[in-house]
Amino acid sequence: MWTYETSVVWKEKQRGETHGSGKPPVEVAMSPELGGPPNIWTPADLLTSAVASSIMTSTLFFAEKSGIELRSYMSNASGVMEKTSGGRTITRIAVEIAITLSEAGQGPAIRKAVERAERTCPISNALRCPVEVVLHLSGAGPVKKTEVTT
Amino acid sequence: MWTYETSVVWKEKQRGETHGSGKPPVEVAMSPELGGPPNIWTPADLLTSAVASSIMTSTLFFAEKSGIELRSYMSNASGVMEKTSGGRTITRIAVEIAITLSEAGQGPAIRKAVERAERTCPISNALRCPVEVVLHLSGAGPVKKTEVTT
Repeated sequence: MWTYETSVVWKEKQRGETHGSGKPPVEVAMSPELGGPPNIWTPADLLTSAVASSIMTSTLFFAEKSGIELRSYMSNASGVMEKTSGGRTITRIAVEIAITLSEAGQGPAIRKAVERAERTCPISNALRCPVEVVLHLSGAGPVKKTEVTT
Repeated sequence: MWTYETSVVWKEKQRGETHGSGKPPVEVAMSPELGGPPNIWTPADLLTSAVASSIMTSTLFFAEKSGIELRSYMSNASGVMEKTSGGRTITRIAVEIAITLSEAGQGPAIRKAVERAERTCPISNALRCPVEVVLHLSGAGPVKKTEVTT
């Protein structure tokens, strides 16, 4: 069992700061859609980044275990908030990953690593909503697109 | 329907950076428990802060609507990760809030605002696991503790 501890301190109006021991503080605020200021991390942004960064770190973990060398990894993620019968909530998170491999021939292995990362992602597992992952691969021969939804 | 867009870029080893349009980038990494470096935001930290900051911004929203003036608001949150039959996941998030009121007599109203914030929190609503909220109040007469679990 592992515990992750953070704190939040209110600064002014709809803004505050979140802290984690030894980590640089991050300014947080209410969403602009709800009257908050622009250009500040919102709770929904943090959730979206939690999912996307967890899938990245898990992919790196499984890739290393399988001896796959990556040249680059980046992803764009979007979290959708909607009003439902149970109130306002995040109903879907889509993560679109672009990976460039260092060596051709490792396409099937990296696809397996991403699928495994998504399936075992502890953050996705904690969510009620679907997390949709699309993988764009280059450096492994012709570009291929893989879709994984859990 | 609102969409929250962020991206993640891998830097080296188990580290990357998450970006949101117009927002300062945040370094992210695999948890030290899984072999990642210390003192960098992890996906589980981000999830824990997403919940805690959402409860804060919702509380501020409802407090303002009810004409409650706060002198201070801070919270400590902890997210617990465990192995379950469905894999590793976050099984519980506890948020302990300390609020100081500017005016005595607003204790019942702020308690109602915190309860409403927790009940309608779009991030808590997106989670499978319980979110437990404890409120410590001062500036409203004798210190009282309220527990809310959803």
